[in-house]
Amino acid sequence: MKPPAVVAILGVGLIGGSIGLALRERGFKGRIIGIGRNRSRLRKALQLGAITESTTSIERGVSQADLIVVCTPVDCIVEHVEQISQHAPSGAVITDVGSTKGTIVAALTGKTGDAHFVGSHPLAGNEKPGVEHAASDLFVNRTVVVTPERKTNVEAKKRIVRFWKKVGADVVSLSTKEHDRSVAMISHMPHAVAAVLAATPTAGQLKLAATGFADTTRIAGADAELWVQIMRDNSVEVLQSLEQFIDNLEQVRCALEHGDYRKLSRYLKRGKQARGSLGS
Amino acid sequence: MKPPAVVAILGVGLIGGSIGLALRERGFKGRIIGIGRNRSRLRKALQLGAITESTTSIERGVSQADLIVVCTPVDCIVEHVEQISQHAPSGAVITDVGSTKGTIVAALTGKTGDAHFVGSHPLAGNEKPGVEHAASDLFVNRTVVVTPERKTNVEAKKRIVRFWKKVGADVVSLSTKEHDRSVAMISHMPHAVAAVLAATPTAGQLKLAATGFADTTRIAGADAELWVQIMRDNSVEVLQSLEQFIDNLEQVRCALEHGDYRKLSRYLKRGKQARGSLGS
Repeated sequence: MKPPAVVAILGVGLIGGSIGLALRERGFKGRIIGIGRNRSRLRKALQLGAITESTTSIERGVSQADLIVVCTPVDCIVEHVEQISQHAPSGAVITDVGSTKGTIVAALTGKTGDAHFVGSHPLAGNEKPGVEHAASDLFVNRTVVVTPERKTNVEAKKRIVRFWKKVGADVVSLSTKEHDRSVAMISHMPHAVAAVLAATPTAGQLKLAATGFADTTRIAGADAELWVQIMRDNSVEVLQSLEQFIDNLEQVRCALEHGDYRKLSRYLKRGKQARGSLGS
Repeated sequence: MKPPAVVAILGVGLIGGSIGLALRERGFKGRIIGIGRNRSRLRKALQLGAITESTTSIERGVSQADLIVVCTPVDCIVEHVEQISQHAPSGAVITDVGSTKGTIVAALTGKTGDAHFVGSHPLAGNEKPGVEHAASDLFVNRTVVVTPERKTNVEAKKRIVRFWKKVGADVVSLSTKEHDRSVAMISHMPHAVAAVLAATPTAGQLKLAATGFADTTRIAGADAELWVQIMRDNSVEVLQSLEQFIDNLEQVRCALEHGDYRKLSRYLKRGKQARGSLGS
Protein backbone atom coordinates (compact mmCIF):
# COMPACT_ATOMS: atom_id res chain seq x y z
CA MET A 1 0.00 0.00 0.00
CA LYS A 2 1.95 2.99 -1.23
CA PRO A 3 0.80 6.55 -0.46
CA PRO A 4 -1.06 8.39 -3.22
CA ALA A 5 1.05 10.40 -5.66
CA VAL A 6 -1.83 12.21 -7.31
CA VAL A 7 -4.82 13.48 -5.35
CA ALA A 8 -7.80 14.98 -7.15
CA ILE A 9 -10.31 17.21 -5.37
CA LEU A 10 -13.68 17.79 -7.00
CA GLY A 11 -15.11 21.03 -5.59
CA VAL A 12 -12.42 23.28 -4.15
CA GLY A 13 -14.35 25.25 -1.53
CA LEU A 14 -13.87 25.42 2.22
CA ILE A 15 -13.45 21.66 2.72
CA GLY A 16 -11.71 20.81 -0.55
CA GLY A 17 -9.38 23.78 -0.22
CA SER A 18 -8.54 22.89 3.36
CA ILE A 19 -7.68 19.33 2.31
CA GLY A 20 -5.22 20.67 -0.27
CA LEU A 21 -3.65 23.14 2.16
CA ALA A 22 -3.37 20.47 4.87
CA LEU A 23 -1.75 17.93 2.52
CA ARG A 24 0.86 20.43 1.37
CA GLU A 25 1.61 21.75 4.85
CA ARG A 26 2.05 18.19 6.07
CA GLY A 27 4.67 17.30 3.51
CA PHE A 28 2.65 15.79 0.64
CA LYS A 29 4.85 16.26 -2.44
CA GLY A 30 2.53 14.85 -5.11
CA ARG A 31 0.14 16.59 -7.51
CA ILE A 32 -3.11 18.02 -6.15
CA ILE A 33 -5.55 18.49 -9.00
CA GLY A 34 -8.47 20.81 -8.31
CA ILE A 35 -11.56 20.13 -10.42
CA GLY A 36 -14.45 22.56 -10.68
CA ARG A 37 -16.73 24.41 -13.05
CA ASN A 38 -15.86 27.90 -11.91
CA ARG A 39 -12.50 29.00 -13.32
CA SER A 40 -12.12 32.01 -11.04
CA ARG A 41 -12.60 29.82 -7.96
CA LEU A 42 -10.01 27.39 -9.29
CA ARG A 43 -7.60 30.31 -9.87
CA LYS A 44 -8.15 31.46 -6.31
CA ALA A 45 -7.43 27.94 -5.02
CA LEU A 46 -4.20 27.88 -7.06
CA GLN A 47 -3.17 31.30 -5.75
CA LEU A 48 -3.82 30.21 -2.16
CA GLY A 49 -1.72 27.09 -2.73
CA ALA A 50 -4.59 24.71 -2.03
CA ILE A 51 -4.03 22.85 -5.34
CA THR A 52 -1.07 22.48 -7.68
CA GLU A 53 -3.07 22.39 -10.93
CA SER A 54 -6.65 22.77 -12.04
CA THR A 55 -9.11 21.64 -14.67
CA THR A 56 -12.79 22.00 -15.42
CA SER A 57 -12.94 18.44 -16.81
CA ILE A 58 -13.74 15.60 -14.44
CA GLU A 59 -12.35 13.13 -16.99
CA ARG A 60 -8.98 14.87 -17.27
CA GLY A 61 -8.88 15.64 -13.56
CA VAL A 62 -9.27 12.07 -12.34
CA SER A 63 -7.69 10.02 -15.12
CA GLN A 64 -4.31 9.86 -13.36
CA ALA A 65 -5.42 10.21 -9.75
CA ASP A 66 -4.81 7.58 -7.05
CA LEU A 67 -7.17 9.19 -4.58
CA ILE A 68 -10.15 11.36 -5.38
CA VAL A 69 -12.13 13.41 -2.86
CA VAL A 70 -15.59 14.60 -3.84
CA CYS A 71 -16.43 17.86 -2.00
CA THR A 72 -19.64 18.78 -3.80
CA PRO A 73 -23.10 19.31 -2.27
CA VAL A 74 -24.85 16.24 -0.85
CA ASP A 75 -27.35 15.89 -3.70
CA CYS A 76 -24.61 15.85 -6.39
CA ILE A 77 -22.28 13.32 -4.81
CA VAL A 78 -23.73 10.10 -6.24
CA GLU A 79 -23.75 11.47 -9.78
CA HIS A 80 -20.22 12.84 -9.43
CA VAL A 81 -18.78 9.61 -8.05
CA GLU A 82 -20.46 7.66 -10.85
CA GLN A 83 -18.87 9.97 -13.44
CA ILE A 84 -15.50 9.76 -11.75
CA SER A 85 -15.57 5.96 -11.59
CA GLN A 86 -15.83 5.84 -15.39
CA HIS A 87 -12.60 7.76 -15.84
CA ALA A 88 -10.48 6.96 -12.77
CA PRO A 89 -7.59 4.50 -13.06
CA SER A 90 -8.22 0.93 -11.93
CA GLY A 91 -7.71 0.66 -8.18
CA ALA A 92 -8.20 4.37 -7.51
CA VAL A 93 -9.93 5.18 -4.25
CA ILE A 94 -12.80 7.66 -4.18
CA THR A 95 -14.27 9.24 -1.08
CA ASP A 96 -16.68 12.08 -0.37
CA VAL A 97 -17.26 14.58 2.45
CA GLY A 98 -21.06 14.55 2.47
CA SER A 99 -22.90 15.24 5.73
CA THR A 100 -25.19 12.25 5.17
CA LYS A 101 -24.08 8.74 4.35
CA GLY A 102 -27.02 6.31 4.06
CA THR A 103 -28.29 7.09 0.55
CA ILE A 104 -24.85 7.93 -0.86
CA VAL A 105 -23.11 4.79 0.38
CA ALA A 106 -26.03 2.54 -0.59
CA ALA A 107 -26.06 3.97 -4.12
CA LEU A 108 -22.32 3.63 -4.67
CA THR A 109 -20.87 0.69 -2.75
CA GLY A 110 -19.73 -1.99 -5.20
CA LYS A 111 -20.95 0.11 -8.13
CA THR A 112 -17.82 2.03 -9.02
CA GLY A 113 -16.23 -0.48 -11.41
CA ASP A 114 -12.51 -0.91 -10.87
CA ALA A 115 -12.34 2.09 -8.55
CA HIS A 116 -13.32 1.79 -4.88
CA PHE A 117 -15.69 4.09 -3.02
CA VAL A 118 -15.50 4.65 0.74
CA GLY A 119 -17.87 7.15 2.40
CA SER A 120 -16.41 9.84 4.66
CA HIS A 121 -17.75 12.76 6.65
CA PRO A 122 -15.35 15.23 8.28
CA LEU A 123 -17.07 16.75 11.32
CA ALA A 124 -15.34 20.03 10.72
CA GLY A 125 -16.53 23.09 9.02
CA ASN A 126 -17.36 26.67 9.28
CA GLU A 127 -20.47 28.66 8.49
CA LYS A 128 -18.36 30.67 6.01
CA PRO A 129 -18.11 28.93 2.64
CA GLY A 130 -15.46 29.26 -0.04
CA VAL A 131 -11.81 28.46 -0.56
CA GLU A 132 -10.93 31.89 0.86
CA HIS A 133 -11.87 30.52 4.31
CA ALA A 134 -9.95 27.26 3.85
CA ALA A 135 -7.36 26.50 6.52
CA SER A 136 -4.62 23.89 6.71
CA ASP A 137 -5.61 23.07 10.30
CA LEU A 138 -9.35 22.64 9.66
CA PHE A 139 -9.17 18.90 10.40
CA VAL A 140 -6.67 18.96 13.24
CA ASN A 141 -8.16 17.22 16.29
CA ARG A 142 -11.48 16.97 14.45
CA THR A 143 -13.28 13.71 13.89
CA VAL A 144 -13.75 12.24 10.44
CA VAL A 145 -16.31 9.43 10.27
CA VAL A 146 -15.72 6.75 7.65
CA THR A 147 -18.63 4.42 6.85
CA PRO A 148 -17.38 1.19 5.27
CA GLU A 149 -19.94 -1.47 4.36
CA ARG A 150 -19.43 -5.22 4.20
CA LYS A 151 -18.78 -4.89 0.46
CA THR A 152 -16.24 -2.09 0.88
CA ASN A 153 -12.72 -2.95 -0.28
CA VAL A 154 -10.64 -3.32 2.87
CA GLU A 155 -7.46 -1.93 1.33
CA ALA A 156 -9.36 1.10 0.03
CA LYS A 157 -10.78 1.76 3.48
CA LYS A 158 -7.27 1.65 4.97
CA ARG A 159 -6.04 4.16 2.40
CA ILE A 160 -8.90 6.54 3.19
CA VAL A 161 -8.28 6.26 6.95
CA ARG A 162 -4.59 7.00 6.36
CA PHE A 163 -5.49 9.95 4.14
CA TRP A 164 -7.66 11.59 6.82
CA LYS A 165 -5.01 10.97 9.49
CA LYS A 166 -2.50 12.61 7.17
CA VAL A 167 -4.51 15.88 7.22
CA GLY A 168 -4.64 15.77 11.03
CA ALA A 169 -8.03 14.18 11.76
CA ASP A 170 -9.09 11.53 14.26
CA VAL A 171 -10.87 8.79 12.34
CA VAL A 172 -13.93 6.93 13.62
CA SER A 173 -15.61 4.07 11.75
CA LEU A 174 -19.42 3.85 11.99
CA SER A 175 -22.25 2.19 10.12
CA THR A 176 -24.13 4.57 7.83
CA LYS A 177 -27.19 4.21 10.07
CA GLU A 178 -25.30 5.12 13.24
CA HIS A 179 -23.64 8.00 11.42
CA ASP A 180 -26.85 9.44 10.03
CA ARG A 181 -28.67 9.14 13.34
CA SER A 182 -25.82 10.76 15.26
CA VAL A 183 -25.28 13.68 12.90
CA ALA A 184 -29.03 14.30 12.75
CA MET A 185 -28.87 14.72 16.51
CA ILE A 186 -25.67 16.75 16.91
CA SER A 187 -25.63 18.70 13.66
CA HIS A 188 -28.69 18.65 11.36
CA MET A 189 -31.44 19.08 13.94
CA PRO A 190 -29.48 21.73 15.90
CA HIS A 191 -29.09 23.60 12.63
CA ALA A 192 -32.87 23.82 12.24
CA VAL A 193 -33.18 24.83 15.91
CA ALA A 194 -30.61 27.61 15.54
CA ALA A 195 -32.33 28.93 12.42
CA VAL A 196 -35.74 29.03 14.10
CA LEU A 197 -34.21 30.60 17.21
CA ALA A 198 -32.66 33.36 15.12
CA ALA A 199 -35.92 33.89 13.22
CA THR A 200 -38.24 34.14 16.23
CA PRO A 201 -37.38 37.52 17.85
CA THR A 202 -38.50 40.83 16.37
CA ALA A 203 -35.89 43.10 14.73
CA GLY A 204 -36.06 45.38 17.78
CA GLN A 205 -35.42 42.50 20.14
CA LEU A 206 -32.52 41.27 18.01
CA LYS A 207 -30.78 44.60 18.60
CA LEU A 208 -30.44 43.64 22.26
CA ALA A 209 -28.84 40.28 21.47
CA ALA A 210 -25.54 39.71 23.26
CA THR A 211 -22.75 37.16 22.75
CA GLY A 212 -24.87 34.31 24.15
CA PHE A 213 -27.51 34.66 21.45
CA ALA A 214 -24.82 35.17 18.82
CA ASP A 215 -23.14 31.89 19.81
CA THR A 216 -26.39 29.96 20.01
CA THR A 217 -27.47 31.00 16.52
CA ARG A 218 -24.06 31.10 14.77
CA ILE A 219 -24.66 27.99 12.62
CA ALA A 220 -27.85 29.56 11.27
CA GLY A 221 -25.55 31.79 9.18
CA ALA A 222 -24.64 28.88 6.87
CA ASP A 223 -26.00 28.42 3.35
CA ALA A 224 -29.72 27.60 3.57
CA GLU A 225 -29.98 25.59 0.34
CA LEU A 226 -27.08 23.29 1.25
CA TRP A 227 -28.78 22.57 4.55
CA VAL A 228 -32.13 21.88 2.95
CA GLN A 229 -30.39 19.23 0.83
CA ILE A 230 -28.73 17.70 3.87
CA MET A 231 -31.96 17.60 5.89
CA ARG A 232 -33.83 16.24 2.90
CA ASP A 233 -31.33 13.45 2.39
CA ASN A 234 -31.42 12.57 6.10
CA SER A 235 -35.05 13.53 6.68
CA VAL A 236 -36.14 10.43 8.64
CA GLU A 237 -33.40 10.82 11.23
CA VAL A 238 -33.66 14.62 11.39
CA LEU A 239 -37.39 14.38 11.97
CA GLN A 240 -36.87 11.83 14.73
CA SER A 241 -34.23 13.98 16.46
CA LEU A 242 -36.42 17.04 16.17
CA GLU A 243 -39.38 15.20 17.70
CA GLN A 244 -37.23 14.06 20.58
CA PHE A 245 -35.95 17.61 21.10
CA ILE A 246 -39.45 19.10 20.98
CA ASP A 247 -40.66 16.48 23.50
CA ASN A 248 -37.90 17.50 25.92
CA LEU A 249 -38.51 21.19 25.35
CA GLU A 250 -42.21 20.57 25.96
CA GLN A 251 -41.26 19.20 29.39
CA VAL A 252 -39.47 22.45 30.16
CA ARG A 253 -42.41 24.49 28.89
CA CYS A 254 -44.70 22.47 31.10
CA ALA A 255 -42.41 22.95 34.13
CA LEU A 256 -42.43 26.72 33.55
CA GLU A 257 -46.19 26.80 33.09
CA HIS A 258 -46.81 24.96 36.34
CA GLY A 259 -44.09 26.66 38.33
CA ASP A 260 -42.22 23.37 38.76
CA TYR A 261 -38.79 24.92 39.23
CA ARG A 262 -37.22 21.73 40.53
CA LYS A 263 -37.97 20.07 37.23
CA LEU A 264 -36.67 23.11 35.35
CA SER A 265 -33.52 22.95 37.46
CA ARG A 266 -33.03 19.27 36.65
CA TYR A 267 -33.18 20.06 32.92
CA LEU A 268 -30.77 22.97 33.16
CA LYS A 269 -28.35 20.86 35.21
CA ARG A 270 -28.56 17.99 32.75
CA GLY A 271 -27.77 20.44 29.96
CA LYS A 272 -24.85 21.94 31.87
CA GLN A 273 -23.42 18.50 32.56
CA ALA A 274 -23.74 17.38 28.93
CA ARG A 275 -22.23 20.65 27.72
CA GLY A 276 -19.36 20.22 30.18
CA SER A 277 -18.46 16.90 28.53
CA LEU A 278 -17.58 18.79 25.32
CA GLY A 279 -14.60 21.08 24.90
CA SER A 280 -14.89 24.85 24.83
CA MET B 1 -23.86 66.71 39.02
CA LYS B 2 -20.36 65.75 40.08
CA PRO B 3 -18.94 62.30 39.29
CA PRO B 4 -18.97 59.75 42.11
CA ALA B 5 -15.93 59.68 44.39
CA VAL B 6 -16.82 56.46 46.16
CA VAL B 7 -18.32 53.49 44.35
CA ALA B 8 -19.48 50.44 46.30
CA ILE B 9 -20.00 47.08 44.62
CA LEU B 10 -22.06 44.45 46.41
CA GLY B 11 -21.07 41.06 45.00
CA VAL B 12 -17.65 41.10 43.40
CA GLY B 13 -17.93 38.29 40.84
CA LEU B 14 -17.67 38.41 37.06
CA ILE B 15 -19.86 41.50 36.62
CA GLY B 16 -18.94 43.36 39.81
CA GLY B 17 -15.25 42.66 39.29
CA SER B 18 -15.39 43.80 35.68
CA ILE B 19 -17.04 47.07 36.76
CA GLY B 20 -14.18 47.73 39.17
CA LEU B 21 -11.49 46.86 36.61
CA ALA B 22 -13.19 48.99 33.93
CA LEU B 23 -13.53 52.02 36.23
CA ARG B 24 -9.86 51.88 37.19
CA GLU B 25 -8.61 51.31 33.66
CA ARG B 26 -10.70 54.25 32.48
CA GLY B 27 -9.19 56.70 34.93
CA PHE B 28 -11.52 56.56 37.91
CA LYS B 29 -9.41 57.72 40.86
CA GLY B 30 -11.93 57.30 43.67
CA ARG B 31 -12.44 54.48 46.16
CA ILE B 32 -14.01 51.25 44.98
CA ILE B 33 -15.37 49.33 47.96
CA GLY B 34 -16.08 45.66 47.39
CA ILE B 35 -18.73 44.18 49.67
CA GLY B 36 -19.29 40.45 50.03
CA ARG B 37 -19.65 37.61 52.48
CA ASN B 38 -16.76 35.53 51.23
CA ARG B 39 -13.42 36.95 52.44
CA SER B 40 -11.29 34.89 50.09
CA ARG B 41 -13.25 36.15 47.07
CA LEU B 42 -12.83 39.71 48.30
CA ARG B 43 -9.07 39.12 48.69
CA LYS B 44 -8.91 37.82 45.14
CA ALA B 45 -10.76 40.91 43.89
CA LEU B 46 -8.27 43.13 45.74
CA GLN B 47 -5.32 41.20 44.30
CA LEU B 48 -6.72 41.53 40.80
CA GLY B 49 -7.18 45.27 41.30
CA ALA B 50 -10.95 45.15 40.80
CA ILE B 51 -11.56 46.99 44.11
CA THR B 52 -9.46 49.26 46.31
CA GLU B 53 -10.85 48.09 49.63
CA SER B 54 -13.22 45.47 50.95
CA THR B 55 -15.66 44.76 53.74
CA THR B 56 -18.15 42.07 54.68
CA SER B 57 -20.52 44.68 56.16
CA ILE B 58 -23.13 46.23 53.89
CA GLU B 59 -23.56 49.07 56.40
CA ARG B 60 -19.88 49.99 56.46
CA GLY B 61 -19.49 49.40 52.74
CA VAL B 62 -22.20 51.78 51.59
CA SER B 63 -22.23 54.44 54.32
CA GLN B 64 -19.90 56.75 52.39
CA ALA B 65 -20.71 55.66 48.82
CA ASP B 66 -22.13 57.97 46.17
CA LEU B 67 -22.97 55.15 43.79
CA ILE B 68 -23.74 51.56 44.72
CA VAL B 69 -24.00 48.68 42.28
CA VAL B 70 -25.76 45.52 43.42
CA CYS B 71 -24.34 42.50 41.58
CA THR B 72 -26.04 39.71 43.53
CA PRO B 73 -28.38 37.01 42.16
CA VAL B 74 -31.79 38.12 40.91
CA ASP B 75 -33.73 36.80 43.89
CA CYS B 76 -31.55 38.68 46.43
CA ILE B 77 -31.56 42.09 44.77
CA VAL B 78 -34.70 43.59 46.34
CA GLU B 79 -33.62 42.64 49.85
CA HIS B 80 -30.09 43.92 49.29
CA VAL B 81 -31.22 47.27 47.89
CA GLU B 82 -33.60 47.70 50.81
CA GLN B 83 -30.75 47.05 53.26
CA ILE B 84 -28.44 49.40 51.39
CA SER B 85 -31.01 52.20 51.31
CA GLN B 86 -31.07 52.20 55.12
CA HIS B 87 -27.35 52.92 55.36
CA ALA B 88 -26.47 54.84 52.18
CA PRO B 89 -25.91 58.62 52.35
CA SER B 90 -28.78 60.86 51.33
CA GLY B 91 -28.78 61.32 47.57
CA ALA B 92 -26.76 58.17 46.87
CA VAL B 93 -27.70 56.35 43.69
CA ILE B 94 -28.23 52.60 43.73
CA THR B 95 -28.45 50.37 40.69
CA ASP B 96 -28.42 46.63 40.04
CA VAL B 97 -27.37 44.31 37.24
CA GLY B 98 -30.26 41.83 37.42
CA SER B 99 -31.35 40.03 34.26
CA THR B 100 -35.01 40.76 35.00
CA LYS B 101 -36.44 44.15 35.80
CA GLY B 102 -40.22 44.05 36.32
CA THR B 103 -40.47 42.70 39.87
CA ILE B 104 -37.26 44.37 41.07
CA VAL B 105 -38.09 47.85 39.81
CA ALA B 106 -41.71 47.65 40.98
CA ALA B 107 -40.59 46.62 44.47
CA LEU B 108 -37.99 49.35 44.82
CA THR B 109 -38.95 52.49 42.90
CA GLY B 110 -39.74 55.31 45.33
CA LYS B 111 -39.10 53.00 48.26
CA THR B 112 -35.42 53.62 48.95
CA GLY B 113 -35.76 56.60 51.29
CA ASP B 114 -33.26 59.39 50.55
CA ALA B 115 -31.30 57.18 48.16
CA HIS B 116 -32.43 56.67 44.56
CA PHE B 117 -32.81 53.35 42.81
CA VAL B 118 -32.50 52.97 39.03
CA GLY B 119 -32.72 49.50 37.45
CA SER B 120 -29.98 48.38 35.06
CA HIS B 121 -29.16 45.26 33.10
CA PRO B 122 -25.82 44.94 31.28
CA LEU B 123 -26.28 42.60 28.30
CA ALA B 124 -22.79 41.28 28.75
CA GLY B 125 -21.58 38.22 30.46
CA ASN B 126 -19.84 34.99 30.17
CA GLU B 127 -20.81 31.48 31.10
CA LYS B 128 -17.77 31.42 33.41
CA PRO B 129 -18.55 32.96 36.78
CA GLY B 130 -16.22 34.53 39.34
CA VAL B 131 -13.96 37.54 39.67
CA GLU B 132 -11.12 35.52 38.13
CA HIS B 133 -12.93 35.84 34.77
CA ALA B 134 -13.61 39.57 35.20
CA ALA B 135 -12.31 41.80 32.40
CA SER B 136 -11.97 45.57 32.11
CA ASP B 137 -13.47 45.44 28.60
CA LEU B 138 -16.52 43.31 29.46
CA PHE B 139 -18.89 46.22 28.77
CA VAL B 140 -17.13 47.76 25.78
CA ASN B 141 -19.56 48.01 22.86
CA ARG B 142 -22.10 46.05 24.89
CA THR B 143 -25.57 47.32 25.60
CA VAL B 144 -26.71 48.21 29.10
CA VAL B 145 -30.46 48.63 29.46
CA VAL B 146 -31.66 51.09 32.11
CA THR B 147 -35.32 50.95 33.09
CA PRO B 148 -36.44 54.22 34.67
CA GLU B 149 -40.06 54.57 35.79
CA ARG B 150 -42.15 57.71 35.99
CA LYS B 151 -41.24 57.99 39.68
CA THR B 152 -37.50 57.53 39.06
CA ASN B 153 -35.36 60.54 40.04
CA VAL B 154 -34.20 62.12 36.77
CA GLU B 155 -30.84 63.21 38.12
CA ALA B 156 -30.19 59.71 39.47
CA LYS B 157 -31.01 58.19 36.08
CA LYS B 158 -28.53 60.54 34.39
CA ARG B 159 -25.82 59.53 36.84
CA ILE B 160 -26.43 55.84 36.18
CA VAL B 161 -26.35 56.38 32.41
CA ARG B 162 -23.07 58.27 32.77
CA PHE B 163 -21.68 55.51 34.97
CA TRP B 164 -22.37 52.79 32.37
CA LYS B 165 -20.95 54.93 29.59
CA LYS B 166 -17.86 55.41 31.75
CA VAL B 167 -17.21 51.64 31.74
CA GLY B 168 -17.59 51.54 27.95
CA ALA B 169 -21.21 50.49 27.42
CA ASP B 170 -23.90 51.72 25.05
CA VAL B 171 -26.93 52.65 27.11
CA VAL B 172 -30.53 52.00 26.04
CA SER B 173 -33.56 53.09 28.06
CA LEU B 174 -36.57 50.74 28.04
CA SER B 175 -39.68 50.15 30.09
CA THR B 176 -39.41 47.18 32.43
CA LYS B 177 -42.07 45.40 30.36
CA GLU B 178 -40.21 45.88 27.08
CA HIS B 179 -36.98 44.84 28.75
CA ASP B 180 -38.38 41.68 30.28
CA ARG B 181 -40.11 40.64 27.07
CA SER B 182 -37.00 41.25 24.96
CA VAL B 183 -34.55 39.46 27.24
CA ALA B 184 -36.94 36.53 27.59
CA MET B 185 -36.74 36.23 23.81
CA ILE B 186 -33.04 36.80 23.20
CA SER B 187 -31.54 35.44 26.41
CA HIS B 188 -33.74 33.52 28.88
CA MET B 189 -35.67 31.31 26.44
CA PRO B 190 -32.54 30.58 24.31
CA HIS B 191 -30.84 29.50 27.52
CA ALA B 192 -33.51 26.85 28.11
CA VAL B 193 -33.28 25.81 24.46
CA ALA B 194 -29.49 25.43 24.62
CA ALA B 195 -29.74 23.37 27.81
CA VAL B 196 -32.33 21.01 26.31
CA LEU B 197 -30.33 20.77 23.09
CA ALA B 198 -27.22 19.75 25.03
CA ALA B 199 -29.21 17.25 27.11
CA THR B 200 -30.96 15.48 24.21
CA PRO B 201 -28.16 13.47 22.47
CA THR B 202 -26.75 10.28 23.95
CA ALA B 203 -23.22 10.31 25.39
CA GLY B 204 -21.99 8.43 22.32
CA GLN B 205 -23.55 10.97 19.98
CA LEU B 206 -22.07 13.85 21.98
CA LYS B 207 -18.60 12.48 21.22
CA LEU B 208 -19.17 13.36 17.57
CA ALA B 209 -20.14 16.95 18.35
CA ALA B 210 -18.14 19.53 16.39
CA THR B 211 -17.71 23.29 16.80
CA GLY B 212 -21.26 24.01 15.58
CA PHE B 213 -22.85 22.05 18.40
CA ALA B 214 -20.36 23.49 20.88
CA ASP B 215 -21.31 27.04 19.87
CA THR B 216 -25.03 26.35 19.89
CA THR B 217 -24.96 24.93 23.41
CA ARG B 218 -22.24 27.14 24.96
CA ILE B 219 -24.63 29.12 27.20
CA ALA B 220 -25.92 25.86 28.69
CA GLY B 221 -22.63 25.76 30.61
CA ALA B 222 -23.73 28.59 32.92
CA ASP B 223 -24.83 28.11 36.53
CA ALA B 224 -28.18 26.27 36.53
CA GLU B 225 -29.52 27.67 39.82
CA LEU B 226 -28.91 31.30 38.79
CA TRP B 227 -30.85 30.64 35.60
CA VAL B 228 -33.73 28.99 37.40
CA GLN B 229 -34.06 32.17 39.47
CA ILE B 230 -33.99 34.35 36.38
CA MET B 231 -36.59 32.26 34.54
CA ARG B 232 -38.73 32.11 37.65
CA ASP B 233 -38.65 35.87 38.06
CA ASN B 234 -39.50 36.38 34.39
CA SER B 235 -41.64 33.27 33.99
CA VAL B 236 -44.60 34.84 32.16
CA GLU B 237 -42.43 36.29 29.41
CA VAL B 238 -40.12 33.26 29.20
CA LEU B 239 -43.13 30.98 28.82
CA GLN B 240 -44.56 33.17 26.10
CA SER B 241 -41.26 33.26 24.18
CA LEU B 242 -40.87 29.51 24.52
CA GLU B 243 -44.39 28.93 23.20
CA GLN B 244 -43.67 31.14 20.22
CA PHE B 245 -40.42 29.30 19.56
CA ILE B 246 -42.05 25.88 19.85
CA ASP B 247 -44.81 27.01 17.45
CA ASN B 248 -42.20 28.00 14.88
CA LEU B 249 -40.21 24.82 15.40
CA GLU B 250 -43.43 22.84 15.00
CA GLN B 251 -43.79 24.43 11.55
CA VAL B 252 -40.34 23.15 10.62
CA ARG B 253 -41.13 19.71 12.00
CA CYS B 254 -44.30 19.66 9.96
CA ALA B 255 -42.45 20.75 6.80
CA LEU B 256 -39.95 17.92 7.31
CA GLU B 257 -42.70 15.40 7.97
CA HIS B 258 -44.55 16.30 4.79
CA GLY B 259 -41.49 16.79 2.63
CA ASP B 260 -42.28 20.48 2.16
CA TYR B 261 -38.71 21.55 1.48
CA ARG B 262 -39.72 24.96 0.14
CA LYS B 263 -41.18 25.79 3.51
CA LEU B 264 -38.10 24.40 5.27
CA SER B 265 -35.95 26.53 2.99
CA ARG B 266 -37.98 29.66 3.84
CA TYR B 267 -37.37 29.04 7.55
CA LEU B 268 -33.66 28.45 7.14
CA LYS B 269 -33.34 31.57 5.00
CA ARG B 270 -35.25 33.65 7.52
CA GLY B 271 -32.89 32.37 10.21
CA LYS B 272 -29.82 33.14 8.12
CA GLN B 273 -31.07 36.66 7.42
CA ALA B 274 -31.84 37.36 11.09
CA ARG B 275 -28.48 35.93 12.15
CA GLY B 276 -26.76 38.11 9.54
CA SER B 277 -28.18 41.22 11.22
CA LEU B 278 -26.09 40.44 14.32
CA GLY B 279 -22.32 40.68 14.50
CA SER B 280 -20.05 37.63 14.54
